[in-house]
Amino acid sequence: MENGASMTNHEAKTASTITIKGILNLLMESIDETHGLKRVLSLGMGDPSLYSCFHTTSVAQEAVVDTLQSQKFNGYAPTVGLLQTRRAIAEYLSCDLPYKLSSDDVFITSGCTQAIDVSVAMLARPGANILLPRPGFPIYELCAAFRQVEVRHYDLLPEKGWEVDLDAIEALADQNTVALVIINPGNPCGNVYTYHHLEKIAKTAKKLGILVIADEVYGHLAFGANPFVPMGVFGSVVPVLTLGSLSKRWIVPGWRLGWFVTNDPCGTFRKPKAVERIKKYFDILGGPATFIQAAVPSIITQTEEVFFRKTLNILKHASDVCCKEIEDIPCIFCPHKPEGSMAMMVKLNLSLLEDISDDIDFCFKLAKEESVIILPGTAVGLKDWLRITFAVDPSALEEAMKRIKSFYQRHAKNR
Amino acid sequence: MENGASMTNHEAKTASTITIKGILNLLMESIDETHGLKRVLSLGMGDPSLYSCFHTTSVAQEAVVDTLQSQKFNGYAPTVGLLQTRRAIAEYLSCDLPYKLSSDDVFITSGCTQAIDVSVAMLARPGANILLPRPGFPIYELCAAFRQVEVRHYDLLPEKGWEVDLDAIEALADQNTVALVIINPGNPCGNVYTYHHLEKIAKTAKKLGILVIADEVYGHLAFGANPFVPMGVFGSVVPVLTLGSLSKRWIVPGWRLGWFVTNDPCGTFRKPKAVERIKKYFDILGGPATFIQAAVPSIITQTEEVFFRKTLNILKHASDVCCKEIEDIPCIFCPHKPEGSMAMMVKLNLSLLEDISDDIDFCFKLAKEESVIILPGTAVGLKDWLRITFAVDPSALEEAMKRIKSFYQRHAKNR
Repeated sequence: MENGASMTNHEAKTASTITIKGILNLLMESIDETHGLKRVLSLGMGDPSLYSCFHTTSVAQEAVVDTLQSQKFNGYAPTVGLLQTRRAIAEYLSCDLPYKLSSDDVFITSGCTQAIDVSVAMLARPGANILLPRPGFPIYELCAAFRQVEVRHYDLLPEKGWEVDLDAIEALADQNTVALVIINPGNPCGNVYTYHHLEKIAKTAKKLGILVIADEVYGHLAFGANPFVPMGVFGSVVPVLTLGSLSKRWIVPGWRLGWFVTNDPCGTFRKPKAVERIKKYFDILGGPATFIQAAVPSIITQTEEVFFRKTLNILKHASDVCCKEIEDIPCIFCPHKPEGSMAMMVKLNLSLLEDISDDIDFCFKLAKEESVIILPGTAVGLKDWLRITFAVDPSALEEAMKRIKSFYQRHAKNR
Repeated sequence: MENGASMTNHEAKTASTITIKGILNLLMESIDETHGLKRVLSLGMGDPSLYSCFHTTSVAQEAVVDTLQSQKFNGYAPTVGLLQTRRAIAEYLSCDLPYKLSSDDVFITSGCTQAIDVSVAMLARPGANILLPRPGFPIYELCAAFRQVEVRHYDLLPEKGWEVDLDAIEALADQNTVALVIINPGNPCGNVYTYHHLEKIAKTAKKLGILVIADEVYGHLAFGANPFVPMGVFGSVVPVLTLGSLSKRWIVPGWRLGWFVTNDPCGTFRKPKAVERIKKYFDILGGPATFIQAAVPSIITQTEEVFFRKTLNILKHASDVCCKEIEDIPCIFCPHKPEGSMAMMVKLNLSLLEDISDDIDFCFKLAKEESVIILPGTAVGLKDWLRITFAVDPSALEEAMKRIKSFYQRHAKNR
């Protein structure tokens, strides 16, 4: 044993890059407690469950207590998930589709993270490459590195509401491209794609002969002009792998209840060998707890619209607060008001700042001096931008923006 | 996209082999309901939670209800697990070790299955091979296939109480061997290794310069002469990766709460790069639900000895029933009475049977005619043997053995 856990070059390259959790931890550690005893305000993580205004519905909590106390679900579930859970998710997703999904299309995963890993692992083969958005969500890069899949980045266009640069897609794809990933509603940009744009994405993918992986972990969290349209609507144009979870819409990211769904009404993808391979892969994954799976049918059918509406109202209000305050802080600029998800990207104007070298420097100094945590854009692929998570208690959000403003004033050129 | 989910040759080879769940499903489907309306009796799966005599303790259930209802654990946990959970497991395991584990040694996984995958994925590198027991647990083979690690099998010796064939280990290992896997208490054999034998395994591994992966998912489930000794006791001889879970000892396999633990007091394995790689790998895994993790400290410290003793008493009684009945069935022979875990291996004597070609034929005909499910040894690597799971309600076990006896009588030569 020379080195029990040696890395390949490919992985080593990625391992040296920043992960969201890694950098947020470093930022937390850099907070200077001698700068008064300010409460730490984090606009860094997409986990609103910490704030009381974002608590989940009692319907969901009671459903899980019931299945646990029934003592019927302490045993193993099938590795692809309980049948009633797969069926309930198929019905839930089919409501918004022009065709019906069956329970066979649905595989239960341990959160959307595992659904991402499954989708990348399923498509991995020697020489394969995958098209990822920039800015994006770094777990895709990490999965690709572990599965030895080459990553090619296409840009999201801020001046076009963070739409996909379809020309870039065509230029990047070749015969080894296996899939194109889109995240809608968008993380980190807070955009929501129109029906028309999604249709263009589907047609481009069809033309190139590649799958679409549609990360809809923020599905239905749209509060702007564009309604949420699932990519599966275009499943008959091109096979779509839809990834989702209860995490964001039900505000229970810690429950680890996600899904990997094949939207493929024409059966292009569902060859026996492909299905067999997916099933075998699930045999080596530990899925979510059986009793949480068993609660899903009740959670989906019994949650009332008013709960979802309340969440959307708070998110809309919070994003409005955020945008309004940003207008008052000259060194940051929001090119596109968020319409969905829980995060937005703002551009940093370094020329207005005296002693800040880049986005990372900005975030570390901000943490140190103001106990406010913001993610540097570099962590999601966009240097000298910032990702602000607005799924935060509105009073905390206002306080955080006030501190960012005073940070700016202290560091502004020619003050 | 020629084939979105094409397989490598290596995987295809494995994909064509049998998995435990796959064959158990086929056996269930082959049950002939026209053969009277016999209740299906499964001695196939290691999941006793279906029987009321094997219900978990109310302490565990209430601890989970409490953490769920507290609404404090609906958010994300760190991907390596909650600190208090890692610490509680470190303390739990340290009780039986000559040194103290720290919380940094413990990584929380989604059941022991994910701990297996982590251990194989961590050691994967081009050309690597791993030594697995025969008979064994096929998830190892599946993980190795997906991670492109070559498998080499060493035999367990029935005439020596299913001890490891250490000569075979020495003959199989080369400079590309990364680890040796042992499962203790044994699945599928029901053996429990002595301190002395484990020490010999450790010294052999040290000599060969390979790690030991100790699968202790059945840890503490020893009811014979040999007490359970964790392999970590020899962590200063050779680095040991211990895999475990709440699943079997607390009879909650569906809760998916497992652990991957580095027993390495000399620090051989804990190079910064190796630790960094493990942490990154956990970033792409969906771990167990946060509120279940949060309940672990209470579950571990508050479960009373009487609950564990009761489980051991039932398992001992059930295995006694099993062995006694087997003595009355000439075509099957148990070379070593089980002393732990929940399963045992029996040898099939085909020469006493008229129209049974092999273990698979035996199991399919038994399912069809008697509605009794037993796993053919082929599924765990040993043709013409059977794996019998005795973690079953004793009355169901007696009934199943009675049916196997009448099946034998109907198929015996020269009756």
